[in-house]
Amino acid sequence: MTAAKRQLRFGAFFSVPGCHPTGWRHPDAICETDLDFRLLADMARTAERGLLDCMFFQDSVAIPGSTAVYGAKPFRIKNGRQAHIEPMSAIAALAAITKHIGLVSTCTTSYNEPYNVARRFLTIDHISGGRAGWNLVTSQAEDEAVNFGRDQHFDHGIRYDRASEFHDVVIGLWDSWEDDAFLRDKKSGQWFDYDKMHILRHKGKHFTVRGPLNVARSPQGRPVVAQAGSSDIGMELAARTADMVFTAQTTIKEGQDFCNDMRSRIEKYGRGPEDIRIFPGIMPIVGRTESEAQEKYEELRGMVDDSVGIAGVARLAGGVDIFACDPDGPLPPLKPSNAARARQEMIIAMGKRGMTIRQIGRVLAMSQAHRVLYGTPKQLADDMQAWLEAGACDGFNLLFAHYPKPLEEWVTMVIPELQRRGIFRTQYEGRTFRENLGVPIPKNVHTTNRTTVQVNAAASND
Amino acid sequence: MTAAKRQLRFGAFFSVPGCHPTGWRHPDAICETDLDFRLLADMARTAERGLLDCMFFQDSVAIPGSTAVYGAKPFRIKNGRQAHIEPMSAIAALAAITKHIGLVSTCTTSYNEPYNVARRFLTIDHISGGRAGWNLVTSQAEDEAVNFGRDQHFDHGIRYDRASEFHDVVIGLWDSWEDDAFLRDKKSGQWFDYDKMHILRHKGKHFTVRGPLNVARSPQGRPVVAQAGSSDIGMELAARTADMVFTAQTTIKEGQDFCNDMRSRIEKYGRGPEDIRIFPGIMPIVGRTESEAQEKYEELRGMVDDSVGIAGVARLAGGVDIFACDPDGPLPPLKPSNAARARQEMIIAMGKRGMTIRQIGRVLAMSQAHRVLYGTPKQLADDMQAWLEAGACDGFNLLFAHYPKPLEEWVTMVIPELQRRGIFRTQYEGRTFRENLGVPIPKNVHTTNRTTVQVNAAASND
Repeated sequence: MTAAKRQLRFGAFFSVPGCHPTGWRHPDAICETDLDFRLLADMARTAERGLLDCMFFQDSVAIPGSTAVYGAKPFRIKNGRQAHIEPMSAIAALAAITKHIGLVSTCTTSYNEPYNVARRFLTIDHISGGRAGWNLVTSQAEDEAVNFGRDQHFDHGIRYDRASEFHDVVIGLWDSWEDDAFLRDKKSGQWFDYDKMHILRHKGKHFTVRGPLNVARSPQGRPVVAQAGSSDIGMELAARTADMVFTAQTTIKEGQDFCNDMRSRIEKYGRGPEDIRIFPGIMPIVGRTESEAQEKYEELRGMVDDSVGIAGVARLAGGVDIFACDPDGPLPPLKPSNAARARQEMIIAMGKRGMTIRQIGRVLAMSQAHRVLYGTPKQLADDMQAWLEAGACDGFNLLFAHYPKPLEEWVTMVIPELQRRGIFRTQYEGRTFRENLGVPIPKNVHTTNRTTVQVNAAASND
Repeated sequence: MTAAKRQLRFGAFFSVPGCHPTGWRHPDAICETDLDFRLLADMARTAERGLLDCMFFQDSVAIPGSTAVYGAKPFRIKNGRQAHIEPMSAIAALAAITKHIGLVSTCTTSYNEPYNVARRFLTIDHISGGRAGWNLVTSQAEDEAVNFGRDQHFDHGIRYDRASEFHDVVIGLWDSWEDDAFLRDKKSGQWFDYDKMHILRHKGKHFTVRGPLNVARSPQGRPVVAQAGSSDIGMELAARTADMVFTAQTTIKEGQDFCNDMRSRIEKYGRGPEDIRIFPGIMPIVGRTESEAQEKYEELRGMVDDSVGIAGVARLAGGVDIFACDPDGPLPPLKPSNAARARQEMIIAMGKRGMTIRQIGRVLAMSQAHRVLYGTPKQLADDMQAWLEAGACDGFNLLFAHYPKPLEEWVTMVIPELQRRGIFRTQYEGRTFRENLGVPIPKNVHTTNRTTVQVNAAASND
């Protein structure tokens, strides 16, 4: 008997109407995925047929680039990622028409209340029977701040401090009720067991939240928490709190370094390597032959609109006016960015390698700075298998250039090749997202405490 | 040819696991409707089969009675309306599995941000194809305040002032995009028409919100806005802003007075009687015979737990310790309540009529102080027809004592009787909630302005 091979896992990263900003112009693209739920529902069924781990929805709480600071009219007009369906509502609706796939929505800690966020994810977890995931982010853009009564965005450090406390409040609220708290006993009239209700009484720097939450505990212990922070402070938060990490890594070496870095960070929080799943992003382009794949790649690369790319560089420039620079000249020294800090470091590194503003913009724009992977199903499988076997990932988050065809091709062409190699599931392992992801189902913290400190358990109630 | 008869309309008011606080103990009750989405989905299908206008979900952002002020342990334990599914997520999920019925969720203006609320309802409106409704409320209980960083609840006046501004911001954001703003033109690369994007730039007393909203305009013009405020200030807000009003009225005279009052208030806002639909609440109890209905009524009345009723009185006492009073004695003078003000006035009136605390508590508890209507289908139809013809209502919001049987009885026994009389639809009138409700589909305010002030339209953009 041979040991079971390590398995790949996949998220489908949804940035409707496509992860390529102008991929929606492709002849195969169906554009209305930004808004038409029936198209999302069809894609959910496709992804579930392909046994993908999850649909993973991007979000922001603004029209990107709508403030004067970053705004360039053509960017706004040509980039399809503008107005779109609100993803927490979308995953709630998708929960009703799917059975197996995990459903992850981004939700910012910068402009929400933890009680509301805790409730919604836990509710979606119940609707889906344990398949909800929260991509915990801090908002990155001034565009968002101005929709929430602020002139300026929170500073990067404060934003993460707030995110960290926000997370702890949400986790605390999710454990408000023990698993068997609700008796619904018609005979005695006891709806719930009072001793199994726990009041949080959180008083922190950013939040004061009493609790208890008014939703019963999760069918999978807790909704999955995903994170994508790649700055030092972001990685530390992920190490302490995330079940799933989404990251941009372009070589096996980078992937290994990132995984090792993350695994070395998690130990101090009493967590082990099996507690966290790391998903680098890739934009996959599949062809039946190598030359077909190459052509498809070049077609999509040629579709990148430079104005979108340059606006992307401008967004990370920390206020330096990129539009006033020669696009075919070098990247000027940037000011410290209060937006995505790790992204800024990445473009500075590209500049040091001699890339022009236009060239950096194209890389940023085409695949949101993730690796573009094109080839035959066999070539793609070889590449991903190498990453898996080198310990450079646990799976990949897939950034399809447009919808729905590249997703369909993934499911019909690439998945079977991986299954033949024994490195991808042939059926879902369990009923819940955590079971499929292979991360632990956490116990209610009060249940654990009760076992050890019986006497103090009651004291946590009124 | 005779003129078409006025038609009744119905909402099913969902306060899971039953509008009667201990109705879940009834032998017919299925208790898990608080949490099990499949049961809600079944009820949605039943309601849609019965051609009901909408499912209307109650909400609060706390475990009711969980703070020391109102808390009475038995109340918390016996009343089933505690932890439950978050209704905005529930209606998003129901949107995916229904085709015709309106889907209304309560959402508080006290502890949310207008940008987030505007986005979610508009998204659900898109998912459902124009069937979303927002029951705009102000939070009523200290229980809620403590979950959102406050020691005390907002004062009644401030709460309504905030609600009014919150509404205006949401409405403004809903009109961020004209109906034909999104071109998705592959050839030109224009995703949207820049001149059809409108930036709100709201700066008010409670909120500063720039916009634009990142969701396209509603398929029904705007999601329906429902309200239930019955205080003077609450009625004024409804008169200015509501499409649908939910109210507690117990006699035809009261219903007529309320409708006349509301209609006289709406005129000054440039609105007419057809712009608003008024739904008193009723708890219906249907029997095949009069005596069966009477027995069912008495069974449910006998199930009211006095501790729940008295706790309900305590909640409206403005801090007077009702638990220290003789339950069979008179209602003491109450302090001004910062909770539901109109409700407090109602119980003071009951006290003046000589009812004891226990008696008042029973009325409050059994049906949330709405009218209990029991009888045969014919008797119920007679009663409702009399209200309709007297101009005392446009329809009723139905508070079923428990689920799902009373809803099923309504659909199979009462609806056919109303249809025979020609006072209830035999099919849905339109595709959207507004069309079925018979209220206007509002035009985008910027479209209207453009027709008259062509020159200024561009000035509203950056």
